[in-house]
Amino acid sequence: MTDFWQDDPELARPLEAVARIMGETLDTPAFPLREALSSLVNSNGKMLRPALLIIGSRFGRINEAKLLPLAAAVELLHVSTLIHDDVIDDATIRRGHPTLHTQFGVKEAVLAGDWLLARSFRLSAQSADEGNAQALARVISAICASEIQQDLDKWRYSTSVRAYLRKISGKTAALLSLSLYVGAVEAKAPSRTAERLRRAGYDIGMAFQIIDDLLDFESSEDVMRKPVGRDLEEGLCTIPLIYALKADEAGIRELLGKLRLSDLSTDKAVLASILARCAETGGIEAARQEAARYTARAQAEIARLPACPARDELSSVADKLLNRAY
Amino acid sequence: MTDFWQDDPELARPLEAVARIMGETLDTPAFPLREALSSLVNSNGKMLRPALLIIGSRFGRINEAKLLPLAAAVELLHVSTLIHDDVIDDATIRRGHPTLHTQFGVKEAVLAGDWLLARSFRLSAQSADEGNAQALARVISAICASEIQQDLDKWRYSTSVRAYLRKISGKTAALLSLSLYVGAVEAKAPSRTAERLRRAGYDIGMAFQIIDDLLDFESSEDVMRKPVGRDLEEGLCTIPLIYALKADEAGIRELLGKLRLSDLSTDKAVLASILARCAETGGIEAARQEAARYTARAQAEIARLPACPARDELSSVADKLLNRAY
Repeated sequence: MTDFWQDDPELARPLEAVARIMGETLDTPAFPLREALSSLVNSNGKMLRPALLIIGSRFGRINEAKLLPLAAAVELLHVSTLIHDDVIDDATIRRGHPTLHTQFGVKEAVLAGDWLLARSFRLSAQSADEGNAQALARVISAICASEIQQDLDKWRYSTSVRAYLRKISGKTAALLSLSLYVGAVEAKAPSRTAERLRRAGYDIGMAFQIIDDLLDFESSEDVMRKPVGRDLEEGLCTIPLIYALKADEAGIRELLGKLRLSDLSTDKAVLASILARCAETGGIEAARQEAARYTARAQAEIARLPACPARDELSSVADKLLNRAY
Repeated sequence: MTDFWQDDPELARPLEAVARIMGETLDTPAFPLREALSSLVNSNGKMLRPALLIIGSRFGRINEAKLLPLAAAVELLHVSTLIHDDVIDDATIRRGHPTLHTQFGVKEAVLAGDWLLARSFRLSAQSADEGNAQALARVISAICASEIQQDLDKWRYSTSVRAYLRKISGKTAALLSLSLYVGAVEAKAPSRTAERLRRAGYDIGMAFQIIDDLLDFESSEDVMRKPVGRDLEEGLCTIPLIYALKADEAGIRELLGKLRLSDLSTDKAVLASILARCAETGGIEAARQEAARYTARAQAEIARLPACPARDELSSVADKLLNRAY
């Protein structure tokens, strides 16, 4: 289970219950890869989406028995996208473990992701309002469409900040936003509150993904538990690079050209130069400011929520995510 | 659209409406691969699952406005599994067209399958009873689990008839059975009728998959619109081979060993010898009898349904599927 929330027993406690439900959901004798999937699911993810769902529910009347399975469904849905992401990016490590497809092959990983997605839908159909179950399905479509767009844009480096923000909106912010919102709706919070939570969740999600992309530029492998510079190696153009290109298009394009040529075994020196140039040109700083701007917008929205412990909790989560190191 | 039902206007008409809904569902500007997916969806599949759902509904009071979107959801769900199947088996042709992953790469095909699966869930959450939406999600899990098992069993040839039947039960019969059942339940048919339809659908589904596997042994490429002997090349052990192994274990294992060795470019002569031996040893005939046995069981169940045009229709569909050439 996660230690991201270890300072916050009010979240850590229900998240442990969510993790138990996830474990039970995976414990299906008919599913051949249940042990491998269980290791992945139990391996200390941040469980951000169920955490947001639980926080959202605290703005209404909580029915934990109904809510926790839904929180598990949202996290399983997220994990299923991670499995397919790893297949797609041919990533070797996830959460400190070898990825599923490196252990069992691409076929098994694709099917395991499908299996998990279907389990997640079943769990949400069981425990969510019909409208919320539909909304969750819609978000998965948005995630897939954004991921496809992201893949089609690889090695082009022509992405604008605007196009980048649109992609991460579908890829990440939509599900984080919906998690908060669905928690509130399921707990019958006032619709005005639920709407504010939806907006705050969106901004938190945007900041979250920007930080995620930023950490790929500046974090150490040890902290991230995955290789640094991975996005660049993959031909992805995320926000630090976009800002860096604005500042020094010719210089950075020249380096990117070398990166592409080196292809299969990336030239680590070229990679390091690009990472350095993104810092020197202010690309990383500009990205950090963008994340801070979204967090500030989220905080402004949060400040308009009814005063309650959940409001303070959400506010501190938004700051914690902005300042995280992994 | 399908021409499998061209002699049956009572089914062809609503299936055209289902195809239109499928087209509308895919027509999402935000989805980059909508055109390629539309070609696949429109390319003359049998649309067996929506056909069964519609037949099932005729045992109750039909509300077509609610039912046809659900029929579309069931077919889209099936198509999403085909996309991932083709990735997994690296199949080059589907329904006479190049497969999605050969056109756009594995990544896009995996995501397109996910996208479609999510769209299908959303459509079924919108249009089905909660219990039916859950049941559809459960069937997808069963399909994935069976596909994983099938893949893990490749090149082993140790499959018993019993293990084979268990696999095709999850892979195919479950969804066909559920389609008939869900149609009946959504149309508020008596529960006894719905249960009979569930059982009949299961037997029809078992016969259907056996015939499918059999056609890989004896059909011509022209008719199947995909290569013959494909399952053998893939290391799959389907029922004609299982029966053939019972009759001549040593001889056929020797041939199978050569097939495995030839690996990347299959030795067509060895393949032809195995296909021939499966016929000579009676494996193909035994498989055909197995399919006929399931169809007879389905017909017995159908005969116990209330007399009505839908009953006759279902009976003729069962026979048509047994005797089909593709």
